[in-house]
Amino acid sequence: MHPSLCETSTFQFDLLHRSKKSRARVGRIYTPHGCIDTPGFVAVGTNGTLKALDNASVNALGVQLMFCNTYHMMLQPGTEVVRAAGGLHTFIHRSGPIITDSGGFQVFSLAYGSVADELKGKGKRKSEGSVLKITEDGVLFRSYRDGKKIWLTPESSIAAQKDLGADIIIPFDELPPYHIDPSSLRRSLERTHRWEERSLLAHLKNPQNQAMYAVIHGGVDLQMRKESCDFLTSRPFDGFAIGGSLGKTKEEMITMLKETVPRLPEDKPNHLLGIGDLYSIDRCIPLGIDTFDSSYPTRSARHGIALTSRGPLNLTKTQYASSFEPLDPECECPTCRRYSLAYVHHLFKAHETPGMTLASIHNLHFMVELMQRYRQNILDDLV
Amino acid sequence: MHPSLCETSTFQFDLLHRSKKSRARVGRIYTPHGCIDTPGFVAVGTNGTLKALDNASVNALGVQLMFCNTYHMMLQPGTEVVRAAGGLHTFIHRSGPIITDSGGFQVFSLAYGSVADELKGKGKRKSEGSVLKITEDGVLFRSYRDGKKIWLTPESSIAAQKDLGADIIIPFDELPPYHIDPSSLRRSLERTHRWEERSLLAHLKNPQNQAMYAVIHGGVDLQMRKESCDFLTSRPFDGFAIGGSLGKTKEEMITMLKETVPRLPEDKPNHLLGIGDLYSIDRCIPLGIDTFDSSYPTRSARHGIALTSRGPLNLTKTQYASSFEPLDPECECPTCRRYSLAYVHHLFKAHETPGMTLASIHNLHFMVELMQRYRQNILDDLV
Repeated sequence: MHPSLCETSTFQFDLLHRSKKSRARVGRIYTPHGCIDTPGFVAVGTNGTLKALDNASVNALGVQLMFCNTYHMMLQPGTEVVRAAGGLHTFIHRSGPIITDSGGFQVFSLAYGSVADELKGKGKRKSEGSVLKITEDGVLFRSYRDGKKIWLTPESSIAAQKDLGADIIIPFDELPPYHIDPSSLRRSLERTHRWEERSLLAHLKNPQNQAMYAVIHGGVDLQMRKESCDFLTSRPFDGFAIGGSLGKTKEEMITMLKETVPRLPEDKPNHLLGIGDLYSIDRCIPLGIDTFDSSYPTRSARHGIALTSRGPLNLTKTQYASSFEPLDPECECPTCRRYSLAYVHHLFKAHETPGMTLASIHNLHFMVELMQRYRQNILDDLV
Repeated sequence: MHPSLCETSTFQFDLLHRSKKSRARVGRIYTPHGCIDTPGFVAVGTNGTLKALDNASVNALGVQLMFCNTYHMMLQPGTEVVRAAGGLHTFIHRSGPIITDSGGFQVFSLAYGSVADELKGKGKRKSEGSVLKITEDGVLFRSYRDGKKIWLTPESSIAAQKDLGADIIIPFDELPPYHIDPSSLRRSLERTHRWEERSLLAHLKNPQNQAMYAVIHGGVDLQMRKESCDFLTSRPFDGFAIGGSLGKTKEEMITMLKETVPRLPEDKPNHLLGIGDLYSIDRCIPLGIDTFDSSYPTRSARHGIALTSRGPLNLTKTQYASSFEPLDPECECPTCRRYSLAYVHHLFKAHETPGMTLASIHNLHFMVELMQRYRQNILDDLV
């Protein structure tokens, strides 16, 4: 359905079908900028753009939800600039729905390193700025752009997200490291709950037609995940994101989700934060996850990996130098309709950035089609 | 006029108007892939792509002629790959006319350094390969890609250009350095003439509906330029490009063109090789130049310079952080219709490549419109 056919002034979720085979479900989220069919893939445009594509192209591909990062937009161009432009949709020329996060993930990655970096044994990158203080109020950090000190608190994060004007916003939370003792994790969880409540309060003073998803925390501690669900689902959030440390392995994540998703209200949408690789999507849809955000398809594209009906394909391999068929013979995307595998291969070999653009278009189209197929399969009770 | 309305099986040039005020003229070149209105701007897509734009976008912008470099296409992907794909138009998805050069310019830049580098006192870049031998037959050089030895001769250049299948091709020539004594320049000129004749011969054995433009040489020596015109215009070339060293300054180039252009036949199109900055275009159109190729508008765009009706504009300047109007209020290009100066500024500040894409779209549209205005002004005898 074209977004313009399903715009509503207020956020709404319709649960359309529950699979007879699993917890998988098909739904539709209505927002002021159009609808989002679930399960759905959410493209990540950190700075208000996907890395190799302009937003007019993203709109045309039918990507129904785009994720922008408040932390990045605070530092450049500044959320006050976006507000003055008339909000993110106008500023970045995005016709469809947008979700923003709270900045918590990024600012705590500065403090503790990201969970991914921690698990890979990497330290934090110096260029990204630094955290000066973490208190009950929030986090004081130094901007890597101009050295300015900035307080990120539940209230300032929500104010920033009000400036941005996304359709869905996220409360400020703490991102504890993966390696944390249970008592520290509990203290972090309790503070996150207080911060989420303060965020909700700030939001409800001025809803601006935005919806707010809570973020369920608790790491890989199933008891704390349960408590987080109990606490947050008793508040009037519009949906529930699953965040925090999702575990060291996919299996650990899936074990956690099996316990967590059933504790979320059926009549509200949920979102799995930062996960969108094909394996995880395939495993998590039967657990009842509605939306997934990930830079995986666009990052892969920039590294020369095309997602195809025959599996991932490394476009830079010499064997494709004379392959004059499309990247995927079954694909109808703008790239596959116009260009051959050999040409896109050539662009990568010649270090020409349109190669990244054409591969990104293809991979995003692949994700849009993939999610459509999942929805059909759920409707047919095959998933 | 849409290209499809003016496709012809053979190359043709119609001179439509001569200005009453100068030597400026309006014409139309017909090719198997559509027409080129002159004076016209020729976009440079060295590797079969403009650096920040895919060719579907370039087609849509109405860029009537695109320049590809044979030297680069020989090394990557190889002209045999392009031939197997069905030629450049199919391979790169270009609906409009294409011109290729001979590879001479690049290979002699390896030997002598480019004239521009020479004048700026720069040496050759090691990464670009090396010339092993220059003989009457041609040039033997080593590929920077795989170390293979390659002979570039009049015959091999034309064979490569037959593989590529551009609408307009160029004979193999020698590019002598700017600082050269007159007797060496004369020897080079005479060899270039012999090479151009051999190129023409090779071309005419298998015309393939391609047109061939001779390249007038002679550096800044007006007598030798005259001799080059006399020699080459007596041969059945379809048009005439002005190449070789065009001088150290714009004035030196203009002095040379004033003497050279009048010696070219009025009923054939001419082309000024590698020049397309706004000042040169403005000075050279009244001298009777028909087409200009240059990477200036796209390279400027990638460096954050937008060409506008109010002059060039540095998109990265802080003063544009909150400028919510288009890059140029008078512009109707896809970038200006959708995005603000502030957003494109933000993309450059955030190091996001779509900024380069949006600026390139704008600058190319600017060039297309600029040339349209020149044509109208010539028709009105104002130029």
